[in-house]
Amino acid sequence: MRSFFKVKTAEDIFKSLRDIKPLGTESVPITGALKRVLAEDIISEEDLPGFQRSTMDGYALAAKDSFGASENLPTPLNIVGEVKMGEMPRFDLRRGECAKISTGGMLPEGADAVVMVEYTQMVEDEMVEICRPVSPLENVILPDDDVTRGQAILHKGRLLRPQDLGILAGLGISMVDVFVKPRAAIISTGEEIVDISQKPEAGQMRDINSYTIGGLCIKSGVKPLYLGIIRDKFEDLTLFIEKGISQADVVLLSGGSSVGVKDFTLDAFLSLDGVELVAHGISISPGKPTIIARKENKTLWGLPGHPVSAMIIFDVFLRYLFGKLSGLSNLTDYDSHAIEAELDRNIESATGREDYIRVKLTHLEDKWLATPILGKSGLISTMVEADGIITIDMNTEGLYRGEKTKVRLF
Amino acid sequence: MRSFFKVKTAEDIFKSLRDIKPLGTESVPITGALKRVLAEDIISEEDLPGFQRSTMDGYALAAKDSFGASENLPTPLNIVGEVKMGEMPRFDLRRGECAKISTGGMLPEGADAVVMVEYTQMVEDEMVEICRPVSPLENVILPDDDVTRGQAILHKGRLLRPQDLGILAGLGISMVDVFVKPRAAIISTGEEIVDISQKPEAGQMRDINSYTIGGLCIKSGVKPLYLGIIRDKFEDLTLFIEKGISQADVVLLSGGSSVGVKDFTLDAFLSLDGVELVAHGISISPGKPTIIARKENKTLWGLPGHPVSAMIIFDVFLRYLFGKLSGLSNLTDYDSHAIEAELDRNIESATGREDYIRVKLTHLEDKWLATPILGKSGLISTMVEADGIITIDMNTEGLYRGEKTKVRLF
Repeated sequence: MRSFFKVKTAEDIFKSLRDIKPLGTESVPITGALKRVLAEDIISEEDLPGFQRSTMDGYALAAKDSFGASENLPTPLNIVGEVKMGEMPRFDLRRGECAKISTGGMLPEGADAVVMVEYTQMVEDEMVEICRPVSPLENVILPDDDVTRGQAILHKGRLLRPQDLGILAGLGISMVDVFVKPRAAIISTGEEIVDISQKPEAGQMRDINSYTIGGLCIKSGVKPLYLGIIRDKFEDLTLFIEKGISQADVVLLSGGSSVGVKDFTLDAFLSLDGVELVAHGISISPGKPTIIARKENKTLWGLPGHPVSAMIIFDVFLRYLFGKLSGLSNLTDYDSHAIEAELDRNIESATGREDYIRVKLTHLEDKWLATPILGKSGLISTMVEADGIITIDMNTEGLYRGEKTKVRLF
Repeated sequence: MRSFFKVKTAEDIFKSLRDIKPLGTESVPITGALKRVLAEDIISEEDLPGFQRSTMDGYALAAKDSFGASENLPTPLNIVGEVKMGEMPRFDLRRGECAKISTGGMLPEGADAVVMVEYTQMVEDEMVEICRPVSPLENVILPDDDVTRGQAILHKGRLLRPQDLGILAGLGISMVDVFVKPRAAIISTGEEIVDISQKPEAGQMRDINSYTIGGLCIKSGVKPLYLGIIRDKFEDLTLFIEKGISQADVVLLSGGSSVGVKDFTLDAFLSLDGVELVAHGISISPGKPTIIARKENKTLWGLPGHPVSAMIIFDVFLRYLFGKLSGLSNLTDYDSHAIEAELDRNIESATGREDYIRVKLTHLEDKWLATPILGKSGLISTMVEADGIITIDMNTEGLYRGEKTKVRLF
């Protein structure tokens, strides 16, 4: 049996992944671009809306014509026309004149404001009384209020949201360049692991990790490639890892990375041309028995066999890695959010390693209460019960009941 | 021009949507079930893992055989065999005996604990010294530690997460019943709206709402059905609404719901057989000019033409509605999370209506600062800039600088 001989801290791992490059780019229609990462800066070639627009239903007028108007002493104005939606008005306004206008209509020449219909009173067919003064530009959007020509509206590396698609549409940009989605080859190993379609014999377990890891991939915008279960045979393992690295950007192998007799993962990784070892063991808990190797921009991960440990490693490191591969500029908000919660009991932690604690959240009046779930990392049910995880850093001996802590939701 | 004649509060709207029923169900493979809503309670038909399992590499033994063992006075035990992974051990343990075991291995009869290899010392080929006592069940998972036969592991209405797929896999459940995804027909109206492929003339705007609303649908697990742009012609509008209601569960029409001359939306809704008016105006800002009608379990929405207003209405009411249609039991955490932030300036608000304020977030040491974005609701750029929204309820006149408030991220 071999001990972990290149145990690294979490910080070391992030450092060694820092230079991972985003993948190539592809052009997609904006209707398919939600949650994709923008691969170009978008500079507007035009003003939006491009014309002076009313934000209300009412009357377009020169604001100064309304000055002094009140309920008791309304100002009468001649209605010289009605602005047709989607058309340039065919008339200009002179002093004492106004035009009927709807929300979104284009202001005629001579108008610089709109008075809401609620503050007017029809006198006769061609005359209306204004009962309240309006300021210049009141209820008006200027031609470049939304976007100015030449403005950088969205930057490379942005995770596209619904409103981003909206602004692209407004500017007539129907296709955008986004980064290609990373692909992850998923392999489960272990003599005891059987396919979910099989009834396990005594001593056997169905494959859990392919499904949790596959789900985490999809959640992170990554395409999972399920390669199946490999028994602990060196040749098969090498073959599948080669297949994985040729078809995917990341190989995620789970199981077989405990310090065991059948621990072939490390040897299989290192037997491949140009593969270098990054870490053999990480000083975090759970998740210590993790092996990371790298070949240029591709990485190979020997994840722990325990489902909880493998998920924690994904959450801590692989979300970051996939963010990098996806070209995401803000890696902190990739797919999940954190909330602040108060611990409802003490948690002990060893110094010298980072601890990841599963917690269940309860909402209590105006705060969240986090209850640690202390089950073994081999129990997937503890993750099903959990709402999120908290991190206890290397130099902290534990957290006290009542302390505020950050819970990352998953 | 007609005033809003059935203005409702937000609470009224929720009340009138409360009895919306989930759609039908379908069976999907678990690899495609992430973020789908479970339509059945999952009761386990077996124990997981189903056998007594080691969580460590080491030696299986009877705990009592290790009592009193120490570094100075280790207890020697005979190694009677090695547990093969994935197999039932072919031997039992008697007093003074142990067996080599790997993580995940099945404990032989007579063993009730595992001592980690780090706390042992090989003496000769068939003898090992135990240097530390272990308690009964130490480093052992019991046959039903993860799941007990008959236990309800996941409930109907749950939004499936990666770990949920894992537990299903562990139990051999490869297909699950989930609720069918709601479909939303999306229609943009307005004489001034042109398709994004077109160059707008003076007074025209490209369609923004189809894309923001389509994006919001996808984000909420809803299938958008883009029906395109309808000019404000009553017959066309009616035709498209009929098409929408026959093909989708919800019709989302935007624009044309301002109190304007060309306000045909309401008439078009009410001209359909069996359609009842739910609201004509909602006392929230932005978003007041919203029309809601209902035909049995289907609803018709006349959303405001302003992109920001339409998005707010989606966020407040449609996420809720789609949660109902999706069969989701916990409607608060459908697709987004909230964080607490401190306001960096005062915000005024009128009583008698709910105000939704766009904010930009900045992280400042250990807290979030929320800066209100006060642009007009016709400006999509304000949503692009925003990180989330805060709600000011009907009875609050405003919020003060420094106040803590909840920001819903989007």
